[in-house]
Amino acid sequence: MQDLQESAALARALDIAADPTVPLGPNPRVGCVLLDAGGRILAEGLHRGAGTPHAEADALARAARTGRDVTGATAVVTLEPCTHTGRTGPCTQALIAAGIARVVIARRDPNPVAAGGAARLRDAGIDVGLDVPPDLAGRAAELNRAWEHGLRAGRPLVTAKVAATLDGRAAAADGSSRWITGPAARAEVHRLREEADVVIVGTGTALVDSPSLTARDQDGRLAARQPVRAVMGLRPVPPLPEIRGAGPARVLATRDPRAALAELFDHGLRHVLLEGGPTLLAAFLREGLVDELILHLAPKLLGAGPATVADLGITGIDEALELELEGVAMLRSPGGQSDAQLRFRPLPGAGSPPR
Amino acid sequence: MQDLQESAALARALDIAADPTVPLGPNPRVGCVLLDAGGRILAEGLHRGAGTPHAEADALARAARTGRDVTGATAVVTLEPCTHTGRTGPCTQALIAAGIARVVIARRDPNPVAAGGAARLRDAGIDVGLDVPPDLAGRAAELNRAWEHGLRAGRPLVTAKVAATLDGRAAAADGSSRWITGPAARAEVHRLREEADVVIVGTGTALVDSPSLTARDQDGRLAARQPVRAVMGLRPVPPLPEIRGAGPARVLATRDPRAALAELFDHGLRHVLLEGGPTLLAAFLREGLVDELILHLAPKLLGAGPATVADLGITGIDEALELELEGVAMLRSPGGQSDAQLRFRPLPGAGSPPR
Ligand SMILES: NC(=O)c1ccc[n+]([C@@H]2O[C@H](COP(=O)([O-])OP(=O)(O)OC[C@H]3O[C@@H](n4cnc5c(N)ncnc54)[C@H](OP(=O)(O)O)[C@@H]3O)[C@@H](O)[C@H]2O)c1
Ligand SMILES: NC(=O)c1ccc[n+]([C@@H]2O[C@H](COP(=O)([O-])OP(=O)(O)OC[C@H]3O[C@@H](n4cnc5c(N)ncnc54)[C@H](OP(=O)(O)O)[C@@H]3O)[C@@H](O)[C@H]2O)c1
Repeated sequence: MQDLQESAALARALDIAADPTVPLGPNPRVGCVLLDAGGRILAEGLHRGAGTPHAEADALARAARTGRDVTGATAVVTLEPCTHTGRTGPCTQALIAAGIARVVIARRDPNPVAAGGAARLRDAGIDVGLDVPPDLAGRAAELNRAWEHGLRAGRPLVTAKVAATLDGRAAAADGSSRWITGPAARAEVHRLREEADVVIVGTGTALVDSPSLTARDQDGRLAARQPVRAVMGLRPVPPLPEIRGAGPARVLATRDPRAALAELFDHGLRHVLLEGGPTLLAAFLREGLVDELILHLAPKLLGAGPATVADLGITGIDEALELELEGVAMLRSPGGQSDAQLRFRPLPGAGSPPR
Repeated sequence: MQDLQESAALARALDIAADPTVPLGPNPRVGCVLLDAGGRILAEGLHRGAGTPHAEADALARAARTGRDVTGATAVVTLEPCTHTGRTGPCTQALIAAGIARVVIARRDPNPVAAGGAARLRDAGIDVGLDVPPDLAGRAAELNRAWEHGLRAGRPLVTAKVAATLDGRAAAADGSSRWITGPAARAEVHRLREEADVVIVGTGTALVDSPSLTARDQDGRLAARQPVRAVMGLRPVPPLPEIRGAGPARVLATRDPRAALAELFDHGLRHVLLEGGPTLLAAFLREGLVDELILHLAPKLLGAGPATVADLGITGIDEALELELEGVAMLRSPGGQSDAQLRFRPLPGAGSPPR
């Protein structure tokens, strides 16, 4: 059981863990808040990426710098403190040494190399709280789902995003697709880009749309965190537009989605945002390599033009590739066009349908 | 201002007005509840279609039959009492003669022949309440929207319903489309049929699917109210399946949506449910004759097959036929497939795009 102050501290720790200036990639995002016996905040800390102190160490260091005594304090952390010595020492050790009395943990560490922190703390006589409110546990899981997916699957998490008219067209007959969706949906895409390590489009889309693939706010200003911008396919295409502050541009000179993902994984990238077009999306779907699918559906009809997903080798309704609808929402743009957002997750075993 | 008892009585009046055994068509659905001074129900009444007593007269007659005194009572009605003498006398007159003291009205009568009831009642010294809670006023408007549309537009209201995979396919490449959607979405379609005067499909759908076009419950039992079942197009097609208790079958031997609607209107039908297929739907959309569009989107991918809407003569994204997204919902089927429901309304002036 947690008290309200610990819950509030955990919500705060989740906020600071998600700091948009922290680079993504092969490290989890972690936040830590230290509370005194009265529930007041002593110090906060976060992990700022590979080679920097872990969140617990960061918080302890700040407490020391500001002269706060942490003996008997409670550490509220978004991820189970690690037990291994990497570029930094194990966090469990640091918490024990500092005299912390209680540790509240929002999510167990799925990394076999680093796990076991809760048990180690308990062995040292520290009170460990693991049953945090479900909404906060959900946020902690969501925050590092790409990192966890990488540990489990050995490849990046793939979120595909598609915009279509209500009759399922990704573009008009003449290839034009700007803008199918309204302001709120476009803002949501930029949020997705900011959360991703890399955005991929096919050479077809690169040729037709010359997309910028940057994360921007509504006034066109670049966000603090920018994804790598990748174009996939064998044809030589003009480079993506040079943009100051944009993520690096990269060519994935292959038609093999698995090879492309392996290459990105080797470079430390854990979360792919696949932005199409229909041919590339179909290639990933056929291989069962789409983990999340987000559809932005515009209140428009075209009656012609490419569908959102190209041929999957399916002829009958019984062979359809099945997913699960996870949620629906209206993306409201007051005074502008409001679109629907639908989130899907492929059912286990989907993909690789008959060809 | 209304009190809680009047609001509850109005909710009840709306329920009984929607009685599924009442035939639809060219008459409004109306309910009436009579309350004594203490807010207790004295009698209820409803309108059961052409040639039968109006709801107010029905309620007054029941009160008389059961020996209840209605002098000084409040009449809560879903539609403004009429002022004209048709097959039955004017309801305002009946209410005045019965000594009713107050009348609560959920919706003004848009029919110029019958309107003016509220004023007539006030002239007779009756207290008239018109500001009912917005949700109940909304239900009263919704209940007779097809009838009101008929008065305004001189043609039936057209609700188009389309089921599609998330990539916008109305059927698989081999033409199979049973079942794209799950149990909850199918139940919703049967509810829509029960609310419609007539269901239309094109000859193409009649040939491929031999649909029953009946309103059924989850166990396959026919609902109390059944729509006329119409097939539209010039090809001779086998008649719809003979089903005991189903609505009459009808052939609309034309390709002109306007002519088809005029024919149905002349037969007293006010609400069309257009169930496709893509060719027929496109024909109605091109003429600006779709008033409401309901999309059931299934969490499935096909990658091939006919789109939900056939060619509209549109080539560029700027020419897209624009609608407004009115609502999104998840149609949950526990243990089965859950689909998304999206409701759209064409923007004024949409339709008749360039050919
Ligand atoms: N509404 C939306 O969300 C959205 C998003 C993106 C694009 N679009 C629209 O989509 C259209 C472009 O679609 P598209 O399908 O031509 O473009 P695409 O999917 O972006 O690119 C297709 C190309 O990707 C390459 N490729 C890489 N791996 C492949 C594989 N495994 N299998 C097949 N091809 C592979 C191939 O090019 P190589 O020959 O170079 O190998 C192929 O021609 C444009 O009109 C654009 O506006 C819409
Ligand atoms: N997913 C869904 O919601 C849904 C719903 C219905 C059907 N479907 C699927 O759709 C497919 C059938 O589609 P479809 O497009 O061939 O069938 P359709 O739209 O039902 O019928 C098309 C026919 O309607 C007639 N028609 C009447 N007025 C017309 C007009 N103004 N313009 C053009 N044609 C007019 C024409 O036939 P004449 O030559 O006889 O005049 C035309 O060939 C089937 O695979 C079915 O399973 C899916």
